[in-house]
Amino acid sequence: QGTRDHAPAQAALRERLLSAVVSCFKRHGAAAIDTPVLELRETLVGKYGEGARLIYELKDQGGELLALRYDLTVPFARYLAMNKITKMKRYHVAKVYRRDNPATTRGRYREFYQCDFDIAGQFDPMIPDAECLKIVHEILSDLQLGDFVIKVNDRRILNGVFAVCGVPESQFIPACCTVDKLDKVPWEEVRSEMVGEKGLSPEVADRIGEYVQLHGGLDLIEQLLQDPKLSQNKVAKEGLGDMKLLFEYLTLFGITGKISFDLSLARGLDYYTGVIFEAVLLQQDNEHLEEPLSVGSVAGGGRYDGLVGMFDAKGRKVPCVGVSIGIERIFSILEQRLEASGEKLRTTETQVLVATPQKHLLAARMKLISELWNAGIKAEMLYKKDPKLLKQLQYCEDTGIPLAAIVGEQELADGVVKLRDVATRKEVRM
Amino acid sequence: QGTRDHAPAQAALRERLLSAVVSCFKRHGAAAIDTPVLELRETLVGKYGEGARLIYELKDQGGELLALRYDLTVPFARYLAMNKITKMKRYHVAKVYRRDNPATTRGRYREFYQCDFDIAGQFDPMIPDAECLKIVHEILSDLQLGDFVIKVNDRRILNGVFAVCGVPESQFIPACCTVDKLDKVPWEEVRSEMVGEKGLSPEVADRIGEYVQLHGGLDLIEQLLQDPKLSQNKVAKEGLGDMKLLFEYLTLFGITGKISFDLSLARGLDYYTGVIFEAVLLQQDNEHLEEPLSVGSVAGGGRYDGLVGMFDAKGRKVPCVGVSIGIERIFSILEQRLEASGEKLRTTETQVLVATPQKHLLAARMKLISELWNAGIKAEMLYKKDPKLLKQLQYCEDTGIPLAAIVGEQELADGVVKLRDVATRKEVRM
Repeated sequence: QGTRDHAPAQAALRERLLSAVVSCFKRHGAAAIDTPVLELRETLVGKYGEGARLIYELKDQGGELLALRYDLTVPFARYLAMNKITKMKRYHVAKVYRRDNPATTRGRYREFYQCDFDIAGQFDPMIPDAECLKIVHEILSDLQLGDFVIKVNDRRILNGVFAVCGVPESQFIPACCTVDKLDKVPWEEVRSEMVGEKGLSPEVADRIGEYVQLHGGLDLIEQLLQDPKLSQNKVAKEGLGDMKLLFEYLTLFGITGKISFDLSLARGLDYYTGVIFEAVLLQQDNEHLEEPLSVGSVAGGGRYDGLVGMFDAKGRKVPCVGVSIGIERIFSILEQRLEASGEKLRTTETQVLVATPQKHLLAARMKLISELWNAGIKAEMLYKKDPKLLKQLQYCEDTGIPLAAIVGEQELADGVVKLRDVATRKEVRM
Repeated sequence: QGTRDHAPAQAALRERLLSAVVSCFKRHGAAAIDTPVLELRETLVGKYGEGARLIYELKDQGGELLALRYDLTVPFARYLAMNKITKMKRYHVAKVYRRDNPATTRGRYREFYQCDFDIAGQFDPMIPDAECLKIVHEILSDLQLGDFVIKVNDRRILNGVFAVCGVPESQFIPACCTVDKLDKVPWEEVRSEMVGEKGLSPEVADRIGEYVQLHGGLDLIEQLLQDPKLSQNKVAKEGLGDMKLLFEYLTLFGITGKISFDLSLARGLDYYTGVIFEAVLLQQDNEHLEEPLSVGSVAGGGRYDGLVGMFDAKGRKVPCVGVSIGIERIFSILEQRLEASGEKLRTTETQVLVATPQKHLLAARMKLISELWNAGIKAEMLYKKDPKLLKQLQYCEDTGIPLAAIVGEQELADGVVKLRDVATRKEVRM
């Protein structure tokens, strides 16, 4: 349940998509690493907040207690700590596992690919963070998925908001998780969860509401830097200062047009400590709507400066910031689009079919195809002793093979091969 | 235990190796498919003989009982049956899982890659089988791993041998597993396991011994076709007839020089029904040895005509033959070789570092690198506001970046960039 096989057409589409993402990661100088699908159970515990109940655990068959990785970020942090690496730019494309309720039409599976790019190391503020946003911008532009917006916020700003609104510090993370639902449900519902389930007073909730419904650009950052309450809060001020710097860098990268500073963005994971962001595609054909509707998140990430330290015996921290591309949702969109277009993706790369027009020529076909393979040419032949020529040409048409190399009795006698262009039916002897 | 992280240098080497294997599979016209790492436990039960105890099972967390795939062949058969596909040539490169005793220096892990190529469908005998052997030959030649031999046998010949030697049919599979150990231990030990553990009489064991120690080429096939006992056995005769045909095709492919018809080859898995084969690398530097020592299997496969039918409600069979490349052992060899050579593999593909020679030029760097990224050029910059030029050039040397694009106050004023070849130190303004 919640997993799927990829047939050749899907595998070919996925290869194309992953290769676009990976070439962007390589363009930004990232190296590849790989970690096991299995992690020690204890590595994953306490990193995912409410997500923890979705972790797949292995049966205790003696030996270590294992679980399937839930994302690629925690294994990356574990890898850095284990190898005492303090500086690294890496990408990782691999499957992760979550025992979630599958919603396959929207691209939500229990086994799915993540494509992560992360920068670890102590650097000047916001430079790597800005690059992560540039990467999201490049990938979503390259893939031509339609209009999108990248929402940006900072956990320090959110924590500052909670503090000045009167939320006790122990309630920051639960409050964060509740705010995070604002992209799916209206404020009224979020407010009643805060008051009902999380035990905040209605006044506190209302005060939070005034902040988290704000979104804008540099102007909003300036406004909040002047906010009488927020400007008194140390972490909020730090977060706002860095947000201003980030916008400066994003202006140099020329991408602020797609960026929205959005105080409702919270992200569900425990480990974020600074900038957080999420890219959403905007509804197409929305002339009749006042504001474009978002059709879901296709990339997300943020800064997690404390995670690596959790795996180090001495608690040594390695600051990190990273981005994860939501490849499954993008894949669903591309798949639907391909289906609608009626275009047929080739699933093989075969250049030539080796064919014979008469019987008793299997040996000639085998000799010729062997020469072609040895020369690095992608070639196929039918696995029949005496196939009809028509069947062989039909196979070319069905699978998109552009050329047929035909060797018949005459060609054998003359020491030549007849090369036929399947589409135009033109033939040359060579 | 028995798993490992791949650091960038290893990931780069692995990418190179997998791409060599995959391009061979594509050269032979295979399409890619992908299946989940998780399979229903019941899918894997009863397919692997003694290997079954090595299957990783997931904890029962409610819902389905799941296990991690043990190989890629059973998932492929399940995929074919589920989708009622009767003809397909596919490759699959992915990780599989076995709770085996790890022997990491010899490349035996609990999580490891398999690279499989299989041909499913009802075709004329031995044509697809011969192609599988051609693929093994191409890959091992391309990778320049040194001398190798591909041992070939047929389960039908083995079953015929067991029958004429007096083994009851119920003991064929256990006898097979025992014979399979002949590549690791001498006949005496195999014989005593047959008599002691498997309960065969000493006479039966001795009769088996006379056959399974034979190896050769076409001459041996001819000899066995004349064997008074074996030629009376229907399945053995079929197997030997097909083996002769196979050798004919392998001659056309020009690869019989590396093929050995070896009656001791049995392969451990239950599902094989016809041709089986295994490629082993031969010991280098063996002038003082009479016969080259094998250093282990690097590819194997065979025909399994019954497996798909086990997943079909009506038991409809789809004949299959396939090959699996033992990528981990090959990887170990290449890794050791790379280490010995002292060669350093680049782990990134960055073409140019954007650098500045003075302070307060971060904005210029960011603008330029953004232009380069947008133009598809692989570019990096240091994540510091004011890095020293020497540090920037040092980074190029450390990571193998060939070019530095330097933009200083003078270049900014002149509207140019100074492009520096890191190795030769030559510079051009452009």
